[in-house]
Amino acid sequence: MGGKLFYNAAITTPLMGGAPAAGAAQGRVASWEKGALFVEGGLVAAVGGEAEVRAALAAKDAEIEEERDCEGAAMIPGFVDPHTHICFAARREKEFTMRLQGKTYLEILGAGGGILSSVNAVKAASEEELFETTRENVLSALNFGTTTMEVKSGYGLDTAEELKMLRVIARLGEETPLDIVPTFMGAHAVPAEYKGRADDFVDILVDEMLPAVKKQGIARYCDVFCETGVYTVPQSRRILEAARKLGMKLRIHADEVDDTQGAGLAAELRVASAEHLLAANEKNLKAMAAAGVIADVLPATAYSLRKPYADARRMIELGVPVALASDCNPGSCFCESMPFVFGLAVMNMNMTVEEALTGCTLNAAWAVGLQDKVGSLETGKQADFLLLDGDSPTILAYHAGVSPVMEVYKKGVYVA
Amino acid sequence: MGGKLFYNAAITTPLMGGAPAAGAAQGRVASWEKGALFVEGGLVAAVGGEAEVRAALAAKDAEIEEERDCEGAAMIPGFVDPHTHICFAARREKEFTMRLQGKTYLEILGAGGGILSSVNAVKAASEEELFETTRENVLSALNFGTTTMEVKSGYGLDTAEELKMLRVIARLGEETPLDIVPTFMGAHAVPAEYKGRADDFVDILVDEMLPAVKKQGIARYCDVFCETGVYTVPQSRRILEAARKLGMKLRIHADEVDDTQGAGLAAELRVASAEHLLAANEKNLKAMAAAGVIADVLPATAYSLRKPYADARRMIELGVPVALASDCNPGSCFCESMPFVFGLAVMNMNMTVEEALTGCTLNAAWAVGLQDKVGSLETGKQADFLLLDGDSPTILAYHAGVSPVMEVYKKGVYVA
Ligand SMILES: [Zn+2]
Ligand SMILES: [Zn+2]
Repeated sequence: MGGKLFYNAAITTPLMGGAPAAGAAQGRVASWEKGALFVEGGLVAAVGGEAEVRAALAAKDAEIEEERDCEGAAMIPGFVDPHTHICFAARREKEFTMRLQGKTYLEILGAGGGILSSVNAVKAASEEELFETTRENVLSALNFGTTTMEVKSGYGLDTAEELKMLRVIARLGEETPLDIVPTFMGAHAVPAEYKGRADDFVDILVDEMLPAVKKQGIARYCDVFCETGVYTVPQSRRILEAARKLGMKLRIHADEVDDTQGAGLAAELRVASAEHLLAANEKNLKAMAAAGVIADVLPATAYSLRKPYADARRMIELGVPVALASDCNPGSCFCESMPFVFGLAVMNMNMTVEEALTGCTLNAAWAVGLQDKVGSLETGKQADFLLLDGDSPTILAYHAGVSPVMEVYKKGVYVA
Repeated sequence: MGGKLFYNAAITTPLMGGAPAAGAAQGRVASWEKGALFVEGGLVAAVGGEAEVRAALAAKDAEIEEERDCEGAAMIPGFVDPHTHICFAARREKEFTMRLQGKTYLEILGAGGGILSSVNAVKAASEEELFETTRENVLSALNFGTTTMEVKSGYGLDTAEELKMLRVIARLGEETPLDIVPTFMGAHAVPAEYKGRADDFVDILVDEMLPAVKKQGIARYCDVFCETGVYTVPQSRRILEAARKLGMKLRIHADEVDDTQGAGLAAELRVASAEHLLAANEKNLKAMAAAGVIADVLPATAYSLRKPYADARRMIELGVPVALASDCNPGSCFCESMPFVFGLAVMNMNMTVEEALTGCTLNAAWAVGLQDKVGSLETGKQADFLLLDGDSPTILAYHAGVSPVMEVYKKGVYVA
């Protein structure tokens, strides 16, 4: 079997080696100013300095079918976006204006906005329409360099609509070049008709929806919105434990607005990732570090809501592996651009370029359980990588507001 | 003569009418949800509600040669970027990393960075190389919707190199679709060899460079960096008055870091625009308002330098017309994207969408003296406009970090 050699690339990649409980050492990267990557069968067969790679290929008599001079362009792993609600049927541009005008969430709800408007839009859309709308946004993300993406359901909120969303999400994995990680998030909100009796809806989630989702067999993760006014810690625990019993992996939206001890629950259940975490306390963050829970932080959401950014620096100091995600959704953060997320992480959260790179690639891969396949350019992993219009990943912050992603490769194949 | 009708567009445009001394009423816009724009000879021949426009065209028996269904897309005037240093020969990615690492400006200078490294790069580049590099960035700006752009010299700092930059800037106007407004900014920095004796360099600027620039005949404006450690108010006054005597129009970088009364000088000289203004005091801002001086504020620079944003809200309250600019330059702000600037103005400076739109179009046109030709979609002006992937200009803030510019038209012709 022969392969394709990408040479004269300025390669930077985080590294798996010496991984703790979960996650990669934030900011530990390898780089070669004049590097090469050899792709065979869609996988990285060799990577390193160009001279070393060429010598190794010669030594084992590898067949180089094709060579590509990258002309010094920076090469990094494809972005992994570990937290999106990108499967939605309608934008909420008008509601955004109301929010800018200072209208309260209740006023927005009263005007037909809020998450339940997304629920209505999904219900009104055919499966085909929902797929087409979503695919368009997913392909935009691909153009921005996202080669692996987690996508949540959660705008269905009843069994039939949630299963419809999950079918659409599965189809994205089949009909786009991306690896798609499907998450069931029936507990994204409490439906209007269950207001004041969320426990009754938890019964339905546990007794009816989760078994149906399990039977459908698409969802890999289960997620819960644990927050004041949404699901309590005991309710969240009940849903997540039920999902785990059915063989699903777990993640949790925790402590976004209030410290409801969601991060503590994340550690207790050793979920894959906890999301948001703006209000998480130090004790629980330490417990997350000990339990190997990835923190998915969402800078574009802070930007779009004009809210503070999560304290990623403190998380890193406490040993919590930090991943960066777009949180792409039609309400609080319509953003599918990981270069924008990267820039915000560096400029507004004071992460180093190397830390942000780890966050957008390898730690994000850990967050979606694909750390053995994607997230770094290492032998045996998928050849998912980007060529950037710059000398190093620094270009992702230096070229403000502009994506430097020139070419996107998935399993060694040019896809965008 | 026939024309082309763009119909079924959601048009939003600022309006010239009732203009004060200079600038448009910030945020006063006209909009038609189902609008139409008729282009004849590169100019707006009619604009308004579709029914009205069709009726008016029928009444005067206008020949509609071609019709384009805009399918409800938002249409706005092409962006006018009134402040750029986009004519540069080399990026400064490495210096950016030093800055992120907390290195001081002196350390960066010591490592060969800073503005004088851009001066060296311009000197080292051939005129053709400088043109090619600049054109690439200008065409990227065009893709982001900029149809008119001010471009400064100022990385030459001696007569020959400044004239070279101005020739390159003139060529951009000839060989790209954009209207380019050339500004001479020999007083962008004090050359290393004149350290401590800036007055001597001011002599050269006034006695040698300005007359040579005048003779060359390309520069429309003269600009000065009035700031502690660069040029004082008296030095700036001397340069600007000399330029005015030669028939050039004026602008000034004022009060970016310290309140050196640069905004007061701007008002005194009734320059076209004053730039930055973070430290400008209330008295001088009021004087600017009275004198009809446009404030060019630069949100992407604040973002890239991790510094506070100019207080555009206060300026608007004081009656200062605010324009938004990219400040695209290789040091403090490598950003040519006006959608990014627009988003920052709304999200981080608390401007309304309508105010930001005025800032990126009509007030920016005032800042470069082209308010009668560009900056709004009104009869008789150039048909420079954008079609956006959204229902209204709100999409420029709502779609965070993503440019919604789908199609760019210059004088009615599709150019990007
Ligand atoms: Zn979420
Ligand atoms: Zn400037």
